[in-house]
Amino acid sequence: MGQTMTQKILSEHAGQDVTPGDTVTVDVDKALLQDGTGPLTVRQLRDMDMEQTAIPEGTVVFLDHQAPPMNADMANEHDLLRDFVKNTGAQLSDVGDGICHQVMTFDYTAPRDILIGADSHTVTGGAVGALATGMGSTDVGVGFATGQTWMRVPDTDEVRLEGELGEGVYAKDLILQIIGDRGADGANYRSMEFVGPLVDDLRIDERMTISNMVVEAGAKSGIFPSDETTKEFYEDRGRADEWEAIEPDEDAEYQMELTYDVSELEPQVAYPHQVDNVVPVSDDRVQDVPIDQAFLGSCTNGRLEDLRIAADILEASGMEINDDTRLIVNPASREIYEQAMEEGVFEVLNEAGAAINTPGCGICYGGHQGALADGENAIGANNRNFKGRFGNPESDVYLGSPATVAASAIKGEITDPREVLP
Amino acid sequence: MGQTMTQKILSEHAGQDVTPGDTVTVDVDKALLQDGTGPLTVRQLRDMDMEQTAIPEGTVVFLDHQAPPMNADMANEHDLLRDFVKNTGAQLSDVGDGICHQVMTFDYTAPRDILIGADSHTVTGGAVGALATGMGSTDVGVGFATGQTWMRVPDTDEVRLEGELGEGVYAKDLILQIIGDRGADGANYRSMEFVGPLVDDLRIDERMTISNMVVEAGAKSGIFPSDETTKEFYEDRGRADEWEAIEPDEDAEYQMELTYDVSELEPQVAYPHQVDNVVPVSDDRVQDVPIDQAFLGSCTNGRLEDLRIAADILEASGMEINDDTRLIVNPASREIYEQAMEEGVFEVLNEAGAAINTPGCGICYGGHQGALADGENAIGANNRNFKGRFGNPESDVYLGSPATVAASAIKGEITDPREVLP
Repeated sequence: MGQTMTQKILSEHAGQDVTPGDTVTVDVDKALLQDGTGPLTVRQLRDMDMEQTAIPEGTVVFLDHQAPPMNADMANEHDLLRDFVKNTGAQLSDVGDGICHQVMTFDYTAPRDILIGADSHTVTGGAVGALATGMGSTDVGVGFATGQTWMRVPDTDEVRLEGELGEGVYAKDLILQIIGDRGADGANYRSMEFVGPLVDDLRIDERMTISNMVVEAGAKSGIFPSDETTKEFYEDRGRADEWEAIEPDEDAEYQMELTYDVSELEPQVAYPHQVDNVVPVSDDRVQDVPIDQAFLGSCTNGRLEDLRIAADILEASGMEINDDTRLIVNPASREIYEQAMEEGVFEVLNEAGAAINTPGCGICYGGHQGALADGENAIGANNRNFKGRFGNPESDVYLGSPATVAASAIKGEITDPREVLP
Repeated sequence: MGQTMTQKILSEHAGQDVTPGDTVTVDVDKALLQDGTGPLTVRQLRDMDMEQTAIPEGTVVFLDHQAPPMNADMANEHDLLRDFVKNTGAQLSDVGDGICHQVMTFDYTAPRDILIGADSHTVTGGAVGALATGMGSTDVGVGFATGQTWMRVPDTDEVRLEGELGEGVYAKDLILQIIGDRGADGANYRSMEFVGPLVDDLRIDERMTISNMVVEAGAKSGIFPSDETTKEFYEDRGRADEWEAIEPDEDAEYQMELTYDVSELEPQVAYPHQVDNVVPVSDDRVQDVPIDQAFLGSCTNGRLEDLRIAADILEASGMEINDDTRLIVNPASREIYEQAMEEGVFEVLNEAGAAINTPGCGICYGGHQGALADGENAIGANNRNFKGRFGNPESDVYLGSPATVAASAIKGEITDPREVLP
């Protein structure tokens, strides 16, 4: 019987052919820690007298969630993580270097890897054909300390993507639609595999947006084939030797098969306070909602291509955001920061009135760099709109594509980006 | 009898000739509020049923101290200040637009103005020949609400500046030396006036650095003549019509006369926890102090020229900061942000490993964007090194010029910039 990509990767790492429902011990290739959950990992390992890593080149500590730190407590957590790096030989991605999922994918994760992280959006690594998944802090710690972890082999869904994305419609809109259809728990502990003709057209950044959000439907992982696009990506990154192909066998057995034709897809918006509250931007529930703050950034949509889309729309619309709307930007990495400067993207955003923050998570997790006031509304290009997500339970967060975010910043209310496209 | 600049400005605004010790009522031209103290001003005015401004074009609200806000409480304070702007017709400088003293001087303050602000570094406006001074929140509120305030006419010191600044020595080093000499309360409620041949050589940004810090010796104001340099500055800013000359009368009577010849001046460092703990960088008390974080920014030294100095040093030294040192940058305004991008200054800082924050005060007031861990040392280009100034009473803050900050970031310890100058 043929295998899905999920089964192939797990079989290779377990040293045996796996089938859904099996519990297997697997080798871990890569692990990520971040400054929110990582300190717990380190403390737990110290308690167990296990402050070590079996995979120092693949264990990466990211100071991204509250970077730079806003108070002494957080600075002390950073200090703890820096000590861990010194003690173990793990890698450090310091304040200002960027968001873990961005930097991990661009600089560390390889196709067919197993990547674990104490962060739910670790699933982003599926974009390059890895089995990447979030786990609890202690599980992740034991995983890299010993180089092994255990998993139940998930059921796998084939998500076949067809058609062509229309103007003003993006990968973000597609994954929002999928989450709306499946519901927040519809794919609990399942692996989604994205196949079909549209995949060939999707850039790595678009695949990252999609993989990043599968966890919003509860999925364990969201894997794309590692194909010619992926190969070119690794060549461009100077990492050609890390590239491997992966695709499902033709006769792979999926537990569910879904098809999405995106040709008629409209821009989608998730309204408060659940990611699966997804409606087209034309829906009454999101039409004319006034926007106090627009957020462009995050591991979902803080990449160069996303910033470009927003800048193009701002430039075409006269370079100005609405008087009653702030635009908060957090590029996903130092590299993107540099590219956005070089290309003039930041010049447009700055002139339009954006506040451009240090690369990092910013307000996405609610901790700093753009909290909302009581009664305010925001639209974000990020992945979650839970109550209080932007630092205030008395505010509302909507989600959309970078284009929808930019259009809404210009108009001061939730706006279909096709109304303002260049 | 001739008048000092301080007496001239007060006389004009009081409608009578003033002498030191007089208490006079004066017209207020400009007023600034910021998000730390401004909410108290607004609440007090509301309590007095006086939410108004007699000088709407000159009353400017700055969201700079915690911008973007890190939590709902601060976001609500911003919201309050935005409401005040809408209710009164005052001007708004929003999140990301920059630090009050920078933007106020570049865009609002004019020579011979009286400027009041509920922020001690309001004195920065003296750089362009204004009488600019900090006051309590309620005093400032009543000042702009009625268009008048009262002041005791201060004693005035003539600070005569001579000689030429050597390589690696800057305006910051000079004002540190003056503060070290005078002591933290040595100029309490006095007005310093800077005159002499060196003044002709000082750019406006350098004068701002000096005026900015006179309050660290307790001074009420620190005023430079408005001369040809000032005139050119106003012409360059498209504000030629706002320029007026001012200089002291030849027979002005000063209560104290001091002369500084800067020719032999060395780079100066203020060690913890007082600004007047000033020693040359070669002094044992600051030599070889390891530096965990270097801070480049603030109303003292966050201007384009300051960022350039640091970038030039970093570029000449191989574009890298020390592995054990972070470099945190907060440009002083949106305009500076744009210029630093255009000139390639940010490219150098970013490549060197700096975390470049949104324009604003950043860690300078201790509230966000770069708190220190317990036991860490920082050197900053800002104006205060009080215990806990960078968010943690268990850490030490040193002060120096942008060149000393950059050199220290490169070496990982307090370093004479002349050791690494291009």
